Amino acid sequence: MVKIAVDGMGGDFAPKEIVEGVRLAINDFSDLSILLVGRSDELKKELQGFTKNIEIVHADEVITMNDKPREALLKKKGSSMHKAVELVRERIADGFVTAGNTGAYMAISLFTLGRLKDVNRPGIGVVIPFKDGDFGVIIDVGASVDIMPRDYLILAILGKTFLYTLTKNENLTVGLLNIGEEEEKGTKLVKEAYKVLKENLKEFKGNIEPHEILYHKADVIVTDGFTGNILEKSYEGALEFTVDMLKEEITKSIVYKIGALLLKPALKNAFNKLNYENFGGSPLLGVDGISVKAHGRSKRFAIKNAIKAAYELAKNNLIENFKQELEKIPQ
Amino acid sequence: MVKIAVDGMGGDFAPKEIVEGVRLAINDFSDLSILLVGRSDELKKELQGFTKNIEIVHADEVITMNDKPREALLKKKGSSMHKAVELVRERIADGFVTAGNTGAYMAISLFTLGRLKDVNRPGIGVVIPFKDGDFGVIIDVGASVDIMPRDYLILAILGKTFLYTLTKNENLTVGLLNIGEEEEKGTKLVKEAYKVLKENLKEFKGNIEPHEILYHKADVIVTDGFTGNILEKSYEGALEFTVDMLKEEITKSIVYKIGALLLKPALKNAFNKLNYENFGGSPLLGVDGISVKAHGRSKRFAIKNAIKAAYELAKNNLIENFKQELEKIPQ
Repeated sequence: MVKIAVDGMGGDFAPKEIVEGVRLAINDFSDLSILLVGRSDELKKELQGFTKNIEIVHADEVITMNDKPREALLKKKGSSMHKAVELVRERIADGFVTAGNTGAYMAISLFTLGRLKDVNRPGIGVVIPFKDGDFGVIIDVGASVDIMPRDYLILAILGKTFLYTLTKNENLTVGLLNIGEEEEKGTKLVKEAYKVLKENLKEFKGNIEPHEILYHKADVIVTDGFTGNILEKSYEGALEFTVDMLKEEITKSIVYKIGALLLKPALKNAFNKLNYENFGGSPLLGVDGISVKAHGRSKRFAIKNAIKAAYELAKNNLIENFKQELEKIPQ
Repeated sequence: MVKIAVDGMGGDFAPKEIVEGVRLAINDFSDLSILLVGRSDELKKELQGFTKNIEIVHADEVITMNDKPREALLKKKGSSMHKAVELVRERIADGFVTAGNTGAYMAISLFTLGRLKDVNRPGIGVVIPFKDGDFGVIIDVGASVDIMPRDYLILAILGKTFLYTLTKNENLTVGLLNIGEEEEKGTKLVKEAYKVLKENLKEFKGNIEPHEILYHKADVIVTDGFTGNILEKSYEGALEFTVDMLKEEITKSIVYKIGALLLKPALKNAFNKLNYENFGGSPLLGVDGISVKAHGRSKRFAIKNAIKAAYELAKNNLIENFKQELEKIPQ
């Protein structure tokens, strides 16, 4: 059995949608068992007698979206998020999922699980769809904002190994997020990162610009957490704005309304393609344990997908793969 | 008369579309005259006898899209781009427009016009549309990639003054591009920039995230050239990808095709809203002269809009306004 600890109390729709997501995941995978962490009375009520492959682990406290990461880390040690991560540290669970407070998630995962050897700065990986139907990963999208040139190399190896664990593709390529194709482009830091990647990583294919990513110019896109977060939120913002504008345009004529009705499924598919929640969660890579963050707004299907991600990463030995790949880095 | 120098040879569709854009601009503004710079025989041929308010200034050389900025700057001094910028430096022209090589444009503008007092690092401003119908500016989107905290303050003042020159709005606000709302978010550099802005600029309203920009949270969004370029190309990339996906979806059913046909104008409006070319050019702000870059792919209407931008900035004394505002900065 693969055991995944799930924070039953984290996220905008907890505990109801978390529990429903757990039930969907249990039904999908016969070798999956869930350690559902949180207030046992509330969780039991939502489960309505459903017990198959689920064990409730009681935790009194709950981390809210308003808690500061530092305070959540230091003062809410009895929280469902803490307890769920501790189950991974103690190797009772094979992985952990939460839809709770992102800052608290990063702090607690990092502090409780610790970093893998050679990893100074872990990164959040986000799975992205390519135009050709394949998928890739951008790392880091927000965990580590001030990093050194060598950290880019480590992030690249984490991203590549994460993607390999999911796809078994041995020919993955790595690109460095930059503002131009040429080696001399970018900040001093990015130029130094380019050199480190070029010298140490055979998979490195050079710079990649934001508008080229989705056309599969590289499988793994490596960047610092500040730039990666700007990129992710810019994609989101441009789409949100265009959907808003389109909705406004459509109201202007009955012909548009009919057109929109006919075209609705196609529009939905096109705009949803870039929805990061399809993968079901962004893992914090570089810590010594599987730790997956679902979006705070996740409902049952997104939660199920996040559990599925943790399950697949555990089943395919993500952490062992990391250790093997990190061993190979020239010192 | 307002005199604008136009590089007749720069851009993917030069000289034909440049000349057509000049004609459109001349017809729109009776107090506009154009110094059209480039190979006089080619330009005369395109003009087909049209001479109203146009003077041709001959230049032998042409900077191509493949020229390296440094080489264009140092080895093609007889180029149409050089000559057009020199007309501004000599105060023969009130402003300059090109659709040519961006790197060469920045290098030649900076070197020929020089920086305004107090400006260490000029910035490219890009005009953006807001959801509410107003427009704002993001500065810098690519001129200066490694900057210091104080440079953010200068960029903010340049952006604010540029926007004031166009709108006469005296209540403009400034936001700092960042990955979170709180003061402690971002890289060390961005945190220091926050402090400098807070201490020295009454218009400063705090941090702004990429997905909030288009909802008019601030009028001027200030950032370094690396992050700004990532932002701009991410917006472009997300839209391009979504349009591509939509085109692909539409082919899947005849119902979709009919829907798309009915909805076409609304789709076009929604997706074009974020098209930066509507303003017609991105000026390099902080140099001692009006210098506007149109997109390399500009056709006649985009060229006309770029000329219109240079014309309006000249007519409303952009450079004088800059000098006045820069004087006010605490040292």
